[in-house]
Amino acid sequence: MKHPAKKITFFFAVFVFLSFHAQAQKNKNTSVNQASIFAKGEKITNSNFVGNAWLQPLVVSDSLNPTAVGNVTFEPGARTKWHLHPAGQILLATGGIGYYQEKGSPKRILRKGEVVKCPPNVAHWHGASPDQEFIQIAITSSHKGATVWLEPVTDEEYHAKVKP
Amino acid sequence: MKHPAKKITFFFAVFVFLSFHAQAQKNKNTSVNQASIFAKGEKITNSNFVGNAWLQPLVVSDSLNPTAVGNVTFEPGARTKWHLHPAGQILLATGGIGYYQEKGSPKRILRKGEVVKCPPNVAHWHGASPDQEFIQIAITSSHKGATVWLEPVTDEEYHAKVKP
Repeated sequence: MKHPAKKITFFFAVFVFLSFHAQAQKNKNTSVNQASIFAKGEKITNSNFVGNAWLQPLVVSDSLNPTAVGNVTFEPGARTKWHLHPAGQILLATGGIGYYQEKGSPKRILRKGEVVKCPPNVAHWHGASPDQEFIQIAITSSHKGATVWLEPVTDEEYHAKVKP
Repeated sequence: MKHPAKKITFFFAVFVFLSFHAQAQKNKNTSVNQASIFAKGEKITNSNFVGNAWLQPLVVSDSLNPTAVGNVTFEPGARTKWHLHPAGQILLATGGIGYYQEKGSPKRILRKGEVVKCPPNVAHWHGASPDQEFIQIAITSSHKGATVWLEPVTDEEYHAKVKP
């Protein structure tokens, strides 16, 4: 490796390798952002959530169409309290790995592309898994009344075994 | 370039370049699939759509929660007929570039992350742009009655200027 031309070719090879490696890493890193189609929104500051969660309202309900749509991002470990919706709720999992549990049933894992239809007046909670964030679209109709918030999810409930 | 070691280094550089170029292209090509969170579903065969469109039902309405959610993919140029929903409709644009128009208003362009709240009983149509597919989540409540299908969108309407 003493010939100058050889040295140049060698360093060129290293440069090309590093350039494309950097590009490949960049593409890898942005794929999570690509999965998040909607804005993350504002950090939720009320006491109905434990841990850090963000809400971007997408559609606000009104008297003509009482359906509200929101994009919710839970940091790892973050979750709602137990709660229920008088007209039920639909959840569309769009990124990460989350948990969902209805009172009396084991919790289940939610992955990108999975959908939950929670019946009216059934107490439930949802949130992120301990190690990965969770992104969901929540579709909630308010025409039968507002969400009823209940007790916090205990650590025992949060860490319980998932539905097989 | 006659020294064998130099030749090897040169071909190594070319190999590394081509390998990473191929990987970069692969990442680029899959990004569209990553954007499509839900399955494409089945090709729509009814006459309410012009061109090729696919529907993946995500949530079926029932008596307790009359909200239906579906993932719709329009091929470039594909569109619905004019139609209206007695309880309105919500559209979440999740990929590609689409068009949306309400009767009496100019059509508008829909891009990934944009949302439409179409009021009850307002005639409208939606579909893909001429050169790019369009993917949307449609949220429709049927508690006030089924969708009313109207006349086809003319080519003049489809190609009309967009809302500034």
